[in-house]
Amino acid sequence: MTSPTFEPRHAGFDQRTRESFAHQSAMRTLGATLASVAPGRVEITLPWAEPLTQQHGFLHAGMVATALDSACGYAGFTLMALEAAVLTIEFKINLLAPAQGESFRMVGTVIKPGRTVTVCEGHAYAIDGGREKLIATMGCTLMAVVGRDNIQG
Amino acid sequence: MTSPTFEPRHAGFDQRTRESFAHQSAMRTLGATLASVAPGRVEITLPWAEPLTQQHGFLHAGMVATALDSACGYAGFTLMALEAAVLTIEFKINLLAPAQGESFRMVGTVIKPGRTVTVCEGHAYAIDGGREKLIATMGCTLMAVVGRDNIQG
Amino acid sequence: MTSPTFEPRHAGFDQRTRESFAHQSAMRTLGATLASVAPGRVEITLPWAEPLTQQHGFLHAGMVATALDSACGYAGFTLMALEAAVLTIEFKINLLAPAQGESFRMVGTVIKPGRTVTVCEGHAYAIDGGREKLIATMGCTLMAVVGRDNIQG
Amino acid sequence: MTSPTFEPRHAGFDQRTRESFAHQSAMRTLGATLASVAPGRVEITLPWAEPLTQQHGFLHAGMVATALDSACGYAGFTLMALEAAVLTIEFKINLLAPAQGESFRMVGTVIKPGRTVTVCEGHAYAIDGGREKLIATMGCTLMAVVGRDNIQG
Repeated sequence: MTSPTFEPRHAGFDQRTRESFAHQSAMRTLGATLASVAPGRVEITLPWAEPLTQQHGFLHAGMVATALDSACGYAGFTLMALEAAVLTIEFKINLLAPAQGESFRMVGTVIKPGRTVTVCEGHAYAIDGGREKLIATMGCTLMAVVGRDNIQG
Repeated sequence: MTSPTFEPRHAGFDQRTRESFAHQSAMRTLGATLASVAPGRVEITLPWAEPLTQQHGFLHAGMVATALDSACGYAGFTLMALEAAVLTIEFKINLLAPAQGESFRMVGTVIKPGRTVTVCEGHAYAIDGGREKLIATMGCTLMAVVGRDNIQG
Repeated sequence: MTSPTFEPRHAGFDQRTRESFAHQSAMRTLGATLASVAPGRVEITLPWAEPLTQQHGFLHAGMVATALDSACGYAGFTLMALEAAVLTIEFKINLLAPAQGESFRMVGTVIKPGRTVTVCEGHAYAIDGGREKLIATMGCTLMAVVGRDNIQG
Repeated sequence: MTSPTFEPRHAGFDQRTRESFAHQSAMRTLGATLASVAPGRVEITLPWAEPLTQQHGFLHAGMVATALDSACGYAGFTLMALEAAVLTIEFKINLLAPAQGESFRMVGTVIKPGRTVTVCEGHAYAIDGGREKLIATMGCTLMAVVGRDNIQG
């Protein structure tokens, strides 16, 4: 399926996304980088790191989910109104293969933008010896939140 | 609904679960403690910590998911055969309220054990000023893996 | 976990739910009955019927989902404003056991009501020889829709 | 993302899938047709029909899920061993737009085949006046069941 393309709702979508990402301490804990930002599509990369692993030395499923959730959340955020903040309502992740590799690439894509509710999908790839392998898929529902003092960006 | 009660399949379920938890570096990164282990039910607690937060200062949804996934995974593990390792096939999380509080309690419960596939549910609570609030629910499917050299415990 | 109790937002919640249910042709196709309506909790029952089965003679997972989705949707609807219609944003179902039995009972319960977004969970039971067995669980997110001409009730 | 291509495990995958589909009474109730069968990919079509609707005249979300679940289930079935039957472990569906249209096309695709557990994704399209619109996506986990007397095909 060809991905749809989207128009951002304001020129500041890129800067605003990068600023919000910079405020996610969890992304620093993951060693994650915001690799690309486009309207409706965000890519996050991170290296394998021992503090993120489960008992077999693979990335913990929850850590894969953390990076994928941010990729999906920011993909949605790029299409939201300037005054909106983004919260995740729910996500579901299927782990297709153990998260082993030198590094990981997480791609979040909007499949249905909305004024209040936005639906995204995420794909996680493990990179090892130059080869990429799909290791997880995510379905994610976001809410645009407006006018709550403690929730901005 | 009353929770079902389960019989462990071997006497070592408690020790084995604690040993595997101790090997999850991700749990150390979360500052998480294995608070209780019973057949088919595991509880994990963790304090709020800045490195786990998203842009609004709440625990990142993925970090909530990480702790809940371990609670569910180990709940299932307590009922698995001695030679089995546990992997998460998929989980889905609904975020009911922002993850704000002094500390968090994650409860994983088996709702359907199986030789190969086990289904669990998880409940995440935020604790603030002595009050508990349900902030997230998880549905989780696990697989018992036997005979793969690189996957044990 | 004890279920929370809820206050309906208007006296007509019961009648309005029954009227909307009566307009769901899919419920007639299922032979389903609205067995009980309470604020935040709705119960639907249906007999086993051959036109609803999959290739092994069990109820098709999608038919179980259809009844559970209505139970969850109407559970949420009982707490929505008078002018709101209800739409399902997403649901996830875990099939715990084959849907075999003489009849089935579907219980939808609100776990987090909201002005726009409501989260419910559903439990499906098969009844056979007087015994009930949990066969499926659902997590479900609903949206209250206001002011769309073609979507009412 | 380009879809992966798969090799069937035996020559009879097509015939076996068609025979099993013919035994799903639920598909007759839906008026559904098995439009195409390929290794790892199955397409089901159905016309809009009043008995499948919810209160607004759209296809009931559960009926969309029923057809999508069969599309995903049979997509997985095409890659399973000859002696295996297929059961759905779980699925999650996101409803992106009301299911309104003259007819509907459901596409199930395997994203990760496995000896025991197979993961699929489904896409549902509404067709109206010659135009197609994506109305729902599904993530689905299947189990290959062998050696249970009452579960075949």
